[in-house]
Amino acid sequence: MHIDLLITNATVLPFPGRNEVIANGFVAISGAAVHAIGPMSACPETASTTVISGEGQLVMPGLVNGHCHAPMTLFRGLADDLDLQTWLHAHIFPAEARQVDPEMVYWCSKLAAAEMLLSGTTTFADGYFLEDEVARACVETGIRCVAGQAVLDFPVPGVPDPAHNIRIAARFLERWQGRNPLITAGIFTHSAYTCSNTTLQRAKELTRRLQAPLFIHVAETEGEACDIAEPLAPTPIGHLEALDLLDPGTVCIHCTWATESDIADIRTSGCAVVTCPQSNAKLASGRMPLRAMMKEHIRLALGTDSAASNNSLDLFRELDFAAKVHKVNPHDPAAAPADKLLHIATAGGAAALGLPGGHGTLTPGAPADLILLDLRRPHLQPFHGPRLLAYSQAGSSVRTVIVHGRIVVQDRQFHTIDLRETCTRVRKLATG
Amino acid sequence: MHIDLLITNATVLPFPGRNEVIANGFVAISGAAVHAIGPMSACPETASTTVISGEGQLVMPGLVNGHCHAPMTLFRGLADDLDLQTWLHAHIFPAEARQVDPEMVYWCSKLAAAEMLLSGTTTFADGYFLEDEVARACVETGIRCVAGQAVLDFPVPGVPDPAHNIRIAARFLERWQGRNPLITAGIFTHSAYTCSNTTLQRAKELTRRLQAPLFIHVAETEGEACDIAEPLAPTPIGHLEALDLLDPGTVCIHCTWATESDIADIRTSGCAVVTCPQSNAKLASGRMPLRAMMKEHIRLALGTDSAASNNSLDLFRELDFAAKVHKVNPHDPAAAPADKLLHIATAGGAAALGLPGGHGTLTPGAPADLILLDLRRPHLQPFHGPRLLAYSQAGSSVRTVIVHGRIVVQDRQFHTIDLRETCTRVRKLATG
Repeated sequence: MHIDLLITNATVLPFPGRNEVIANGFVAISGAAVHAIGPMSACPETASTTVISGEGQLVMPGLVNGHCHAPMTLFRGLADDLDLQTWLHAHIFPAEARQVDPEMVYWCSKLAAAEMLLSGTTTFADGYFLEDEVARACVETGIRCVAGQAVLDFPVPGVPDPAHNIRIAARFLERWQGRNPLITAGIFTHSAYTCSNTTLQRAKELTRRLQAPLFIHVAETEGEACDIAEPLAPTPIGHLEALDLLDPGTVCIHCTWATESDIADIRTSGCAVVTCPQSNAKLASGRMPLRAMMKEHIRLALGTDSAASNNSLDLFRELDFAAKVHKVNPHDPAAAPADKLLHIATAGGAAALGLPGGHGTLTPGAPADLILLDLRRPHLQPFHGPRLLAYSQAGSSVRTVIVHGRIVVQDRQFHTIDLRETCTRVRKLATG
Repeated sequence: MHIDLLITNATVLPFPGRNEVIANGFVAISGAAVHAIGPMSACPETASTTVISGEGQLVMPGLVNGHCHAPMTLFRGLADDLDLQTWLHAHIFPAEARQVDPEMVYWCSKLAAAEMLLSGTTTFADGYFLEDEVARACVETGIRCVAGQAVLDFPVPGVPDPAHNIRIAARFLERWQGRNPLITAGIFTHSAYTCSNTTLQRAKELTRRLQAPLFIHVAETEGEACDIAEPLAPTPIGHLEALDLLDPGTVCIHCTWATESDIADIRTSGCAVVTCPQSNAKLASGRMPLRAMMKEHIRLALGTDSAASNNSLDLFRELDFAAKVHKVNPHDPAAAPADKLLHIATAGGAAALGLPGGHGTLTPGAPADLILLDLRRPHLQPFHGPRLLAYSQAGSSVRTVIVHGRIVVQDRQFHTIDLRETCTRVRKLATG
């Protein structure tokens, strides 16, 4: 098989979460997939191949960000130190009503994609209005995206009449399913407090029929159950279970307030869960029962949530926060170990999003989505082992990013987009 | 007065923690001090002056890291996900016994200084063995340091016979007090569980007489009181109070388990407190009562602790973690507001360490310790205001660093040290 791209002389971490590296190794890429990895002694001959020297660098699979609203980068730092409901109703919803249109979604998604790529994320799951523009921005930037068209039961950008929300989402799926290797199309039903029971069931029916992922915010705050119009169970997760929404194609976002019985429902149904610990902390929503979820082998992903509630999209930073915040109370230094979180941020997260096996690892046949980190930066000195990637802001050390076999970023420069133009456009949108 | 260095066309943040910036301003430096700041319309003429363009950048005072053990960068990532006592006794103390010598302290301190400067810290407080080598490394690198010679009642590097620990610390003070503008000399009594009551009192007597700061770890873990040989009070902080150790020249590090009555003792005595939330979280020590401390107007600083328990020395990241972890439980989005933490990480922290007024601000006469951040990086787009510096990893956006009026780092390149050599030396020390 022809090798298109070869990375040589790197420290290779094929399975983040396993504490094993190839000290001086290679990664060979053929087309859009990993072809082989190994020590340099087994490196194939390279006459007509693009070669990247990995000298002083670590190569590993790119990270998988399980939850984002990419266009909301426009609202980064717009309002801080507020609870979720005040933040949403007094700041974010009014700003969205004024500012969300296709141009805003497109440029702000490009900025989000750029920020994620530069901090080592090669795949993210998104949910927003006018999601076509998110998908288009991702294709142009060269990042992989599981894109969810938003469904709510009130008028939103692109869906002035909520009676058509499912129809519009169905058209989104038609336009994107199987059309571009970087895009997996899905539906993002915002929540059980913004969608009626009928809407949720219709969305699930559609995604089940088309084998598309369904995303939903659930159990984010303590009081959420009170805001559901026609609750079918005492807890929001129980409500989704009663609606037959939970199955392996459903991704539940947050689950901050999941009860023991909710966790049992999640486990039995096989649905996935995304945790966004920084957003949950910043909005004072709480801390999800990660230990209990891990114990029950729930399919877990880690997400940044939007830049408006985080306020960064660096998943390495999220990983660090997750690893620490769960150790605080009860005091347990082995809670949320670095190894488990490195797995959740890569192969674990990919599996939670329903992406094909191999994704998030460097194994033959896996998608060639990988990142090179500069191991010579002061904050990664010395390098006693890959657990350091969890605890010392590896995201700022990303030098080169490859997605679907294509070099998207090299030595921190984009091959795909004009980053300066993107930033200028977003600044212009922000200042009105 | 002659202007030696002029920064033009920058966004100027003179008082971190106040949400006010000069949108297009200048900072003029004369010798080692800030001479003037203002809008560009008031910028002085610049014929023979070094000019740095601040276009697209934010200039603000450098951060003040209230607690570090710089040489311990050697043990970064050596052992993770362990509690404090296991981590210390099974990993850190044995590694220190094998590896700490003047060469190790010198090179690893240089690495720590480089990492701090590159992430925006211009002053840090340190405590370790062979502290002369820390001070020497700081002077060469060009960072400001409040350097504390370690005092313990067992044999340690440089002090084989603990009977001489106070004498050796006194000589350290003699050598460094008032000798170099970058160095403030102090004593770091490790803790009440490694120092006898007599040793603590002798150290305090010495620092009181010489008007030098005294640092001490206290109330870091829940069980600490049990490890004090001759306790004079039920709590470790009460014990220090009973020993007459608490006064404005004492800096209490951690105070994770400070009780209400401890906080009252701290307030009455006027001593300062350094909180290291990431280290406390990672070692599962707990979370300090920050809100109560702020309410009582305790003199607070923020510290990273060492790279071995963090595992990075980026104080912006510490600030972010502090702002979030304190909102989690009880759920309070206004706990640990960004503004207060930005103040604590600059002028507040400087005052807690006993540094002269003005330190940590950009006011005429303040030490010219300042940093320029690249506001055009994707993760700082758009820039709705300086609170974003708390929440979006500003540390990785530092471009230029000035300490004591001298350009130490420009466009991320060191003017003072050979960073590559420093990293190589530390790697060599790490691999033995």
